[in-house]
Amino acid sequence: MITHSGYAVEPWSLRETELNLDLLSQSESVFALSNGHIGWRGNLDEGEPHGLPGAYLNGVHELHPLPYAEAGYGYPESGETLINITDGKIIRLLVDDHPCDVRYGELTAHERVLDFRTGVLRRTADWTSPAGLSVRITSERLVSFTQRAIAAIAYEVEPLNGSTTVAVQSELVANEQMPHLTGDPRVAAAIDCPLMPEEDFAKDTRLRLVHCTRHSAQRVGAAADHLIDGPEGTTWSAESEPDVSRLTVTSTLEPGRRLRLVKFVGYGWSVERSLSAVRDQVDGAVAAARSTGWEALLAEQRAYLDNFWSGADVEVDGDAQIQQAVRFALFHVLQAAARSEERAIPAKGLTGTGYDGHSFWDVESFVLPLLTFTAPQAVAPVLRWRHATLPAARDRAHQLGLAGAAFPWRTISGAECSAYWPAGTAAFHINADIAYAVLRYVAVTGDVTFARGPGLELLVHTARLWHSLGHHDPEGVFHIDGVTGPDEYSAIARDNLYTNLMARRNLTAAAELASRHPDRAEELGVDDEETAAWRDAAARIAVPYNAALGVHEQSAGFTGFQHWDFAATSAEQYPLLLHFPYFDLYRKQVVKQADLVLAMVTCGDDFTAEEKARNFAYYEALTVRDSSLSACCQAVMAAETGHLRLAYAYLGEAALMDLENLEHNTRDGLHIASLAGTWMALVLGLGGMRQHESEDGGIGPLGFAPRMPEQLSGLKFTVMVRGRRLRVDIRRSTARYVLEEGEPLHLLHHGELLTVSGDRPVERPLPPARVLPEPQQPKGRPPADRSPTGAFDGDEDSD
Amino acid sequence: MITHSGYAVEPWSLRETELNLDLLSQSESVFALSNGHIGWRGNLDEGEPHGLPGAYLNGVHELHPLPYAEAGYGYPESGETLINITDGKIIRLLVDDHPCDVRYGELTAHERVLDFRTGVLRRTADWTSPAGLSVRITSERLVSFTQRAIAAIAYEVEPLNGSTTVAVQSELVANEQMPHLTGDPRVAAAIDCPLMPEEDFAKDTRLRLVHCTRHSAQRVGAAADHLIDGPEGTTWSAESEPDVSRLTVTSTLEPGRRLRLVKFVGYGWSVERSLSAVRDQVDGAVAAARSTGWEALLAEQRAYLDNFWSGADVEVDGDAQIQQAVRFALFHVLQAAARSEERAIPAKGLTGTGYDGHSFWDVESFVLPLLTFTAPQAVAPVLRWRHATLPAARDRAHQLGLAGAAFPWRTISGAECSAYWPAGTAAFHINADIAYAVLRYVAVTGDVTFARGPGLELLVHTARLWHSLGHHDPEGVFHIDGVTGPDEYSAIARDNLYTNLMARRNLTAAAELASRHPDRAEELGVDDEETAAWRDAAARIAVPYNAALGVHEQSAGFTGFQHWDFAATSAEQYPLLLHFPYFDLYRKQVVKQADLVLAMVTCGDDFTAEEKARNFAYYEALTVRDSSLSACCQAVMAAETGHLRLAYAYLGEAALMDLENLEHNTRDGLHIASLAGTWMALVLGLGGMRQHESEDGGIGPLGFAPRMPEQLSGLKFTVMVRGRRLRVDIRRSTARYVLEEGEPLHLLHHGELLTVSGDRPVERPLPPARVLPEPQQPKGRPPADRSPTGAFDGDEDSD
Repeated sequence: MITHSGYAVEPWSLRETELNLDLLSQSESVFALSNGHIGWRGNLDEGEPHGLPGAYLNGVHELHPLPYAEAGYGYPESGETLINITDGKIIRLLVDDHPCDVRYGELTAHERVLDFRTGVLRRTADWTSPAGLSVRITSERLVSFTQRAIAAIAYEVEPLNGSTTVAVQSELVANEQMPHLTGDPRVAAAIDCPLMPEEDFAKDTRLRLVHCTRHSAQRVGAAADHLIDGPEGTTWSAESEPDVSRLTVTSTLEPGRRLRLVKFVGYGWSVERSLSAVRDQVDGAVAAARSTGWEALLAEQRAYLDNFWSGADVEVDGDAQIQQAVRFALFHVLQAAARSEERAIPAKGLTGTGYDGHSFWDVESFVLPLLTFTAPQAVAPVLRWRHATLPAARDRAHQLGLAGAAFPWRTISGAECSAYWPAGTAAFHINADIAYAVLRYVAVTGDVTFARGPGLELLVHTARLWHSLGHHDPEGVFHIDGVTGPDEYSAIARDNLYTNLMARRNLTAAAELASRHPDRAEELGVDDEETAAWRDAAARIAVPYNAALGVHEQSAGFTGFQHWDFAATSAEQYPLLLHFPYFDLYRKQVVKQADLVLAMVTCGDDFTAEEKARNFAYYEALTVRDSSLSACCQAVMAAETGHLRLAYAYLGEAALMDLENLEHNTRDGLHIASLAGTWMALVLGLGGMRQHESEDGGIGPLGFAPRMPEQLSGLKFTVMVRGRRLRVDIRRSTARYVLEEGEPLHLLHHGELLTVSGDRPVERPLPPARVLPEPQQPKGRPPADRSPTGAFDGDEDSD
Repeated sequence: MITHSGYAVEPWSLRETELNLDLLSQSESVFALSNGHIGWRGNLDEGEPHGLPGAYLNGVHELHPLPYAEAGYGYPESGETLINITDGKIIRLLVDDHPCDVRYGELTAHERVLDFRTGVLRRTADWTSPAGLSVRITSERLVSFTQRAIAAIAYEVEPLNGSTTVAVQSELVANEQMPHLTGDPRVAAAIDCPLMPEEDFAKDTRLRLVHCTRHSAQRVGAAADHLIDGPEGTTWSAESEPDVSRLTVTSTLEPGRRLRLVKFVGYGWSVERSLSAVRDQVDGAVAAARSTGWEALLAEQRAYLDNFWSGADVEVDGDAQIQQAVRFALFHVLQAAARSEERAIPAKGLTGTGYDGHSFWDVESFVLPLLTFTAPQAVAPVLRWRHATLPAARDRAHQLGLAGAAFPWRTISGAECSAYWPAGTAAFHINADIAYAVLRYVAVTGDVTFARGPGLELLVHTARLWHSLGHHDPEGVFHIDGVTGPDEYSAIARDNLYTNLMARRNLTAAAELASRHPDRAEELGVDDEETAAWRDAAARIAVPYNAALGVHEQSAGFTGFQHWDFAATSAEQYPLLLHFPYFDLYRKQVVKQADLVLAMVTCGDDFTAEEKARNFAYYEALTVRDSSLSACCQAVMAAETGHLRLAYAYLGEAALMDLENLEHNTRDGLHIASLAGTWMALVLGLGGMRQHESEDGGIGPLGFAPRMPEQLSGLKFTVMVRGRRLRVDIRRSTARYVLEEGEPLHLLHHGELLTVSGDRPVERPLPPARVLPEPQQPKGRPPADRSPTGAFDGDEDSD
């Protein structure tokens, strides 16, 4: 079955059987390989044609001035942008004297398959040169999960219709010519030739280039070595210039004979280490990989992924497209995070340069929930990255006149890079999102070392921020004024409910953790007066509620704003921010993305079921989903409030965001948070998994409230909790909990406390869903319905 | 008496007797000459040394891109900046072979006098060259009020200690080298060499240059002719290049003999007219001026000013410094406006390039009140300028999704140039300010032609804006959400009280005027349904009030915000916007400038006396006066609420803003609105003059409520009302109303209705002032007190 997206629907892979040059950028994103440290976009081996060439190292960026026509105090002056580093993917092919370029001659067969279990991108192409010579190209490419500095390619060429002389040029190329995607000359200047050459080398089968970025002064090394397997008469030579290092292999091939090249590419970068240290580092990595060998690299990759899938897989029975999408999602989230190791996870992972390669709250609020329950070992390094940026966040808080730490809205290095403060600095909720990610991680893993160390510091400094940001009114109510919540169609509001509830939890949990580790708390200068002040503020925090309507307010006064005129808004006017001024969006009831709805997911215990139902219905009518972060949250609350058809539709939207290019910008990179949201929609949504809040503001027992939409016959997923592996197997009318590994576990099933042990799975019936009128979305904005056949019933309006 | 400001205190002039090179920029601003069309900064005749060379033509500007690191819908893309045009002031002098430059040799005497009655800047300088030759230079300079295109200089040089050969070079210079004052390379690019040469000419004593701006495509012509009077043997020659046209006069002078040059400079510009048309225009202007002759030009200038002062003068008995300051203020406001004739009045007039030469609400809200009552013939052209920008304002409203017209927050041409929308686009009150200026002008002059024409159009389109901007809540209250009032330390607020009251008046008055001119209203598409909707919205507009505190709220919820921590704010941290982020200023109770206090001035009838007293005291404690627009408004309300000492202190601050350089930026040009505010503080403040609102939203009888601070013994001022000239003569215990011209007039004296006629002046006692506790200002922010001696008792904190 081929969908209109151009990919075959298969359970464990993504297969492309036609090369559509118009969609090249999009396919480069979906076929990108990464281990969180190295990222290679799915560019063709020959380098061209391309949509956007991309080789990235997590953290390698260039600086550029941020311009302001009217400057203001505290505005960040320097921007950061992810840059295309030395490209080690390129293997050019000459067939006789014709460069192999699919824009010329004829591509008679083409296939690319990304295999989620092997972690390998395999390509086969039959190409006939303008002179009529046909060759078959086969390549396999991986970015290693096990050898963090290594990417590798096995490349084969074979003539199909006669003897031919081929030349294969395997290269490292720096400062590739880039298409100009930005209108800002300063950003263009930063990304145009960002690498200053320091050293180039080529000898035998080995290549190396070392460069340094101009302003950020990051030294980037790339090295390669090759194994060559060809018929007699195959010769090679290597040469280098400052921006290119090249191995050329020539061979005359008869039909049936192949030339095979295995290329091991090693990367490293540092701002501290010297040229010779970086040189040795990349050479050493390549030598180790060569010694491992291609087949063993493949085997390591498979073993790594087998282990991942055993604790992370989600099985969806009855919807092959969703089945594929969730594995695609899990695979790409893993790629974004696996070996990022104290570097940020960008919003696009390392699949493209969208959002300049910046990280946002997406990390803690969307990516980490998935990883915490499926690959917890990858979580602490991410939180340690945040912790490593604490000095910058404390400086920023100081600059803003606040206590504690103010983490950046968008950043690569830890410095604030947001040039529009109403939707940047004012979005203070990111600090509570970070604190909550710490709480979640500690609760799920029981990692006390982390909790006592970076965890406590993060909680304390964010609690201090909230305490200094808010104030008590004459009645003693604690207000947080002038902040922006997740919904970017509102800004600079009083008492954003999401922010307040998350801040409340942050304050309470910081006090609790400090009292649990008094020695560490003392080192941080926390005393009983301070924790009492945090608890008091938390206890009296404002929770805006409109009693007349019986709904919570997204922020104080929100429900009194004018309603957006959806009837007068045409499909072409979405996303609204491209067609209406901020001032108009901010002052009306229109919601870009789940905000209060997200609060009901993360702080669900703060609402009654009736409140959730009423709130969901109210905000559903206002939410236009102009952000890819919205559908997954709406899926979760739709499921909880019993609207399973709707939950399933939102699940589909989140799951197909990139595969169907629903936001028309997959070319810039994948929506990692929305991919993670696919898992949220399934596990938190249909699985109803929640970490309930404990008395002390921490996180209590894990609960499930499975619900099965009529489109599915089964849903199975595995989560890792405190060293246990729990498998949840949901059928149409029952849910079965199986402890596959570890000590007995207490959990809740629709509120009933159960104990599951290795020898005693527990099965319970699913309660009937409450039947409520289905909420309405704004005109033209309902999600695409998914009929029970599993076919995608596209709704043109909502694309 | 010489104050530390460096200027002698004299009733009718500003005299400088020492040349302080460090304060050159400031003196160039205060000695600037202008007629509202041409502006010449007070640069020395020789051109150098200078702080900032400046020759301006109202409206001549260059364009530059406005940069945004994060762009948004509706952000203006093009900025406008006032440029230094062809400089006709320059007369260089060589004494033997030494260029006369006061940085070399010795300046043994120096005096400059700006005479407010003659409108002439006179300079005398005795200079000894490095070779020991001494000369006396005398120059008189004027920018003609009567011949709009003409500026002129009479220049004399005379040797003092021996025979000397002098060369006098009288020039037109384009593209003068400018000091770089901006950090933005794009703005620098716009103002660096902005003029592309089209034609240069020099013949006999005549010079001419025609240039065109690069992006704004404005053709600028400058021409000069000269009268030369020297001893026998005096010779001259003229020559020109693309950027300089020069007449060189040489003469050998014995002591007692002089060389005298009279230079007539003519300017013109157009985007429409051809090169030859502009050439002829400037040549013609110069020929006419030459035919008028220097003495007659002086006489015309004097006559123009005599007429102005007869209707505008303010006499202040008991404070010589304020007496001088108010005449300085009236003179410069006249200079900014007199012949602007359907061009904007920039915030700095034509005295410097501060604020890029942009016009703001200052025009309608600060400059026009003064002009309406003193030089009403100058007002209609200014309002016609606004009216001429109506198409741009309607386009802007359409772009913003609003009805009617949205006038720009800052502009030269009429296009929005504000690059920070929370303090730009969101400051919608400018539309009501324009409407109110129309009402005021029509009420004071009875100009029905204007009212039926541009006046009605301005009222209708601004009323439409308000009606589309606001909305009714379920209780029927009309709210205006998401706007910024005059106080720029708050933004994007609900129901800014100033905005709402001004919008109410705008809506009511538009309905009323439309019903008075039904034929014109019909042409504009106004029907009874529309006017009814305006009236209904006006009647139900929200007026935020905190009953517990008994004060109005600047905007809804304002009084619930956290108080700014003034105790922790040091003197060096003012102005706050340079030391604190907007987000922090916006969410706390701190006021940059009169906002609600201004509402009590412009819409005084909407408040009871008790409300005014309580409101004034409340906001006084929050207002830091980080804007030059604040003190004058506070002076008016301090006077009305009986705090005469405070009113007088604020009067002093407004009056001395530029003479004492209180904001440290007089170098960039004068604060025209604050200068106009000096008149407001005296006439609206101590004179208590108000236009009361009539039943129909129009403006009713003129009222006075004179109050005399102990520092003064008398205050006299003249206002022009409906063709009448009314003189108000306030003494310590009485006020006398004298009708100097026109039909009998009804007026109010402290609420008592009087009728004054030509043969029957009326005198009334001043009622005793209510004694209330004096309001407190934020720590360190009280205005400098003015002791009864009239000496300026500077308060270091508030400078």
